[in-house]
Amino acid sequence: MKIAVVGLGYWGPNLVRNFSLSDNVSQVICCDLDAQRMKQIVRKFPHVKAASSFDDILKSDCDAVVVATPISQHYPLGMKALKHGKHVLIEKPLAMNSKECEELVRTAEDNKLVLMVDHTFLYTGAVRKMKEIVSSGEVGDLYYFDSVRVNLGLFQHDVNVIWDLAVHDLSIMDYVLGQMPTAVSTTGLAHVPGKPENIAYMTMFFDTTLIAHIHVNWLAPVKVRRTLLGGSRRMVVFDDLEASEKVKIYDKGISVNPSPENVYQMQVGYRTGDMSAPRLDTTEALAIEAAHFIDCVANSHRPITDGEAGLRIVRLLEAATESMATRGRLVTLNTPVHL
Amino acid sequence: MKIAVVGLGYWGPNLVRNFSLSDNVSQVICCDLDAQRMKQIVRKFPHVKAASSFDDILKSDCDAVVVATPISQHYPLGMKALKHGKHVLIEKPLAMNSKECEELVRTAEDNKLVLMVDHTFLYTGAVRKMKEIVSSGEVGDLYYFDSVRVNLGLFQHDVNVIWDLAVHDLSIMDYVLGQMPTAVSTTGLAHVPGKPENIAYMTMFFDTTLIAHIHVNWLAPVKVRRTLLGGSRRMVVFDDLEASEKVKIYDKGISVNPSPENVYQMQVGYRTGDMSAPRLDTTEALAIEAAHFIDCVANSHRPITDGEAGLRIVRLLEAATESMATRGRLVTLNTPVHL
Amino acid sequence: MKIAVVGLGYWGPNLVRNFSLSDNVSQVICCDLDAQRMKQIVRKFPHVKAASSFDDILKSDCDAVVVATPISQHYPLGMKALKHGKHVLIEKPLAMNSKECEELVRTAEDNKLVLMVDHTFLYTGAVRKMKEIVSSGEVGDLYYFDSVRVNLGLFQHDVNVIWDLAVHDLSIMDYVLGQMPTAVSTTGLAHVPGKPENIAYMTMFFDTTLIAHIHVNWLAPVKVRRTLLGGSRRMVVFDDLEASEKVKIYDKGISVNPSPENVYQMQVGYRTGDMSAPRLDTTEALAIEAAHFIDCVANSHRPITDGEAGLRIVRLLEAATESMATRGRLVTLNTPVHL
Amino acid sequence: MKIAVVGLGYWGPNLVRNFSLSDNVSQVICCDLDAQRMKQIVRKFPHVKAASSFDDILKSDCDAVVVATPISQHYPLGMKALKHGKHVLIEKPLAMNSKECEELVRTAEDNKLVLMVDHTFLYTGAVRKMKEIVSSGEVGDLYYFDSVRVNLGLFQHDVNVIWDLAVHDLSIMDYVLGQMPTAVSTTGLAHVPGKPENIAYMTMFFDTTLIAHIHVNWLAPVKVRRTLLGGSRRMVVFDDLEASEKVKIYDKGISVNPSPENVYQMQVGYRTGDMSAPRLDTTEALAIEAAHFIDCVANSHRPITDGEAGLRIVRLLEAATESMATRGRLVTLNTPVHL
Repeated sequence: MKIAVVGLGYWGPNLVRNFSLSDNVSQVICCDLDAQRMKQIVRKFPHVKAASSFDDILKSDCDAVVVATPISQHYPLGMKALKHGKHVLIEKPLAMNSKECEELVRTAEDNKLVLMVDHTFLYTGAVRKMKEIVSSGEVGDLYYFDSVRVNLGLFQHDVNVIWDLAVHDLSIMDYVLGQMPTAVSTTGLAHVPGKPENIAYMTMFFDTTLIAHIHVNWLAPVKVRRTLLGGSRRMVVFDDLEASEKVKIYDKGISVNPSPENVYQMQVGYRTGDMSAPRLDTTEALAIEAAHFIDCVANSHRPITDGEAGLRIVRLLEAATESMATRGRLVTLNTPVHL
Repeated sequence: MKIAVVGLGYWGPNLVRNFSLSDNVSQVICCDLDAQRMKQIVRKFPHVKAASSFDDILKSDCDAVVVATPISQHYPLGMKALKHGKHVLIEKPLAMNSKECEELVRTAEDNKLVLMVDHTFLYTGAVRKMKEIVSSGEVGDLYYFDSVRVNLGLFQHDVNVIWDLAVHDLSIMDYVLGQMPTAVSTTGLAHVPGKPENIAYMTMFFDTTLIAHIHVNWLAPVKVRRTLLGGSRRMVVFDDLEASEKVKIYDKGISVNPSPENVYQMQVGYRTGDMSAPRLDTTEALAIEAAHFIDCVANSHRPITDGEAGLRIVRLLEAATESMATRGRLVTLNTPVHL
Repeated sequence: MKIAVVGLGYWGPNLVRNFSLSDNVSQVICCDLDAQRMKQIVRKFPHVKAASSFDDILKSDCDAVVVATPISQHYPLGMKALKHGKHVLIEKPLAMNSKECEELVRTAEDNKLVLMVDHTFLYTGAVRKMKEIVSSGEVGDLYYFDSVRVNLGLFQHDVNVIWDLAVHDLSIMDYVLGQMPTAVSTTGLAHVPGKPENIAYMTMFFDTTLIAHIHVNWLAPVKVRRTLLGGSRRMVVFDDLEASEKVKIYDKGISVNPSPENVYQMQVGYRTGDMSAPRLDTTEALAIEAAHFIDCVANSHRPITDGEAGLRIVRLLEAATESMATRGRLVTLNTPVHL
Repeated sequence: MKIAVVGLGYWGPNLVRNFSLSDNVSQVICCDLDAQRMKQIVRKFPHVKAASSFDDILKSDCDAVVVATPISQHYPLGMKALKHGKHVLIEKPLAMNSKECEELVRTAEDNKLVLMVDHTFLYTGAVRKMKEIVSSGEVGDLYYFDSVRVNLGLFQHDVNVIWDLAVHDLSIMDYVLGQMPTAVSTTGLAHVPGKPENIAYMTMFFDTTLIAHIHVNWLAPVKVRRTLLGGSRRMVVFDDLEASEKVKIYDKGISVNPSPENVYQMQVGYRTGDMSAPRLDTTEALAIEAAHFIDCVANSHRPITDGEAGLRIVRLLEAATESMATRGRLVTLNTPVHL
């Protein structure tokens, strides 16, 4: 299989490295508008082939194109690749808006091509373990998903902090919970005049007694990357900054029973049991993701992070941005989740 | 000075202990509807005098009454005490709603009596240090106040988690920032049928480029009590669960300058310097608060946590509860802050 | 049962409180040479009876005497109490030297009286859980016991830091491992002229492939109280400063197998599995210890922390002090462990 | 300048990378007995030249040779390189014993060549900051140096855990304290039959009231890399596992004064003030070290980590191993530190 990587900024070289190491990839081709970056990548990976333009890539015999450019180029480059019969893997978020995402999804389906979005976190041992725990029923009914991702981070020019950071938490949430929110209320603020919001708080409501909240901030003195997941039977803490024991499962919670005096009144009992931290697979997420993409292309499988997953996340990002512009006004998501 | 303490539940005995230890208090009287509690307190503090009823206290020659009952009794007992010429210290929150608070404030002023609310955190070394840092200008322009207070805590029957827990963060915010929000958007959920909300997220907007957020939860597997305070010159982290070094000051942040190429475009620079954790006074907060109340009564001073502070917090709690009922709808606070 | 407590310094009041709360204790009597302390204890515990002297206690009808005085008085007061037919509980360490301990043990046995030493840590949920794990065989062969107890602590005048702090770690080690060291090498230093050593490092050797080490320090900027226990099948970390999850069990270790190429050469394999933190009983240790003492007195049981346990620890303290005076010279312990 | 790197195991590739990136290095040559490793390095660093043997390197026009082989080869390869007029940088520890070290030092001096040992930690921002603090006198008189380096680490076949791990702590100690111990007492144990000791405790005595201790362990369930440095005016904690704030300076300690009642008796006072964590240079240590080596070669400077530093550490390792074989017997170091 031959893979082309377009865009060699921060993330592109990691994609080049992981596809280069795969036994199922005979050739990695790459291109970037910046000649300097091209030179560096070829110096670092001598077996990688440099293409002089994106058109050259389209015309080449590569099987798949990986788009790792700025967001605004995801849609045009992704569409061109699909129309040239290439399978496509696109950096997150999938595109600038849900309309673009829908077209990408439809085009891939019409042409029976693989469309995958690079929601990398879903391929980490930690998130796969969380998914496994929730799917097994061990957590019980889901009560809340609460995620914090703050840092003194790079202020983006083109997208707000939700599109930059919350996209990670949303993709984890979408995968682990397997439910789509029905409404969103988001607040936030921009501290630099003329820049997008750098701090944001996003609440999501569901059809069930589940609530989700994401706090993202580019302007925090300390780094926090922590997700709390509350259920009726277990609670889970995922702390990505822990060296090991990133996922802890707590046998803690409440039990709700009718009061002995009054059956219409509920009594709350408290439970505190053992904690356990399961061993996690420490394989690099991108290596697993690359192998998954290659497998989907080779065997016409649907990726875990398919175009629809990318679309769902972009719909949430759109709704959050709309709500944030009106200081938390509730935005409902009534479009059917699946096309 | 003679002090009466009404209500001997969880907090009352702490008030009894601290007032008993004061050299300026000649007698502590107390009462509770529960005879068992009365017996215990007298056994534990043999010098404390038991009153048979609240009326006995009103008729006694005590100078001040401390109300540590459930919230619903704050207003009726506080009003009676004021009308009998007693100075009053009331447990937080000051009362059930802002109307009750306003009446308490007005009655105290009309009778030239001290009305103080027990916002205990304001008397801790940590919060006083934060106030000092912000007041000195060291933090610069205020950007955000972000506070998390979660735990596997006691589900309350009469009030939601905001009235129970966020009241602490709001009183700290009010004191440290010295600004009143202009609008509130709050979301939350009740996981136990028929009980008030046990998880809530409260955003507050201000007239300036300041945003505040409080996350409270009775149903978390881990205990977190952390406040981040972001400013243009310094950032502060207050972690109440740290054994020492509860307050850390970070010389971190961004600098915003016109771009050299385009004066209308802002460039963001990043700054990372030293961190320091100042030594904090470790005197028990309630001891300092009791001394402050005694001093205010003796010398007709206005308490730091006066009735108006109690009113401001209750207005925020009301607005938050109203917003939460409508899934985050913005509630504006246009009543003038000071009566 | 009537209990007398002698010595009301730092620890005595805790003993008074716990014995007072017991349903099996009809009367607590106490005495101290310091009249001020006596006054305070009676004010705080109105039902406690004050004795005017130790002789009064000996002459009283109390069943047992608890000795919580400075170490030098443990032996003379303990002996007097035993000779007057009183059961005795003595603060740790049992006495000034092993000769005194042996006499106390012999006197108690001759008179069929309970002699117990206050090794409080053995009654905590954490240490009992560690004992349970090791006894069950879950940990496998024991490899090492490594304990650190450092702090900016009170410099003692009469005993070095080993007698003050390591006594805790030694009693935990003695209980959990169930083995007595055969030799000791200790190093340390005094930083204040004329005072005993304030920092010390104590290594203990056993007949098996087990090694133990204790690091104690009164002059550390941070507080550490952590014990590592390594075994062939599991490893345990006991961190007493953790709010919850004080005991963590790691399924980590090595496996040693003959090399496939050379049966005389060993190959080391590494194993990393799950971690778990069992729920611990959080009852106050001293409450459990007081109940155990009462039970031993009432039913003529031998306490977990009997006089011999106290003797074993004092022998280790003596050997460590002797070794420290000669900069680590090995001191063997060939006296039979049990009398 | 042309640099040759011999030995491409774990550390060699890092040396190749850092020297390759230097503007002052025109050519990096390398060799390893393992052809596979050679292939990988040339694939990864296409501009690096492969030598077919060490003799080829000696005959080449390279200015300096970096020896990153197993320890047993440090001396023979280092000596050959020096005798061929090459400057030499040798991986830590400098050689198998102090005799070898002395010869290397003498040969380098006789031939006026740079001999440097790769004590990498001394080039980290954290250790340089510690050195700066101690040198400035801010810490006051030095009381103790206590270092822990434990992990579930790779069991070595040829050297014990002291030679593998404590070498880091010893080089940090040597640099930061600027004092050489006068005697060593070490204990330890081997848990795998036929393998060297995998756990060790090393105490060092000095001519002053300073004591040092190093605890190393290949068989620990948790990773700890923490150094405490106690002084009369300040105490320092260096925790290498902290993401930021690796070095914390505590204004804590004791003051010792003659007692007012008895001038011959000392009174101990306690001091607790602010803590601060200075910003640290985060440049990769090996990049700074490589630049320092290049500068020493180019300008005939003596390296910070010169051959004598390597010799001092090896003397301590020898003494520790000798003491450990006799269960802590004191080994004095009376050879003059500097040749």
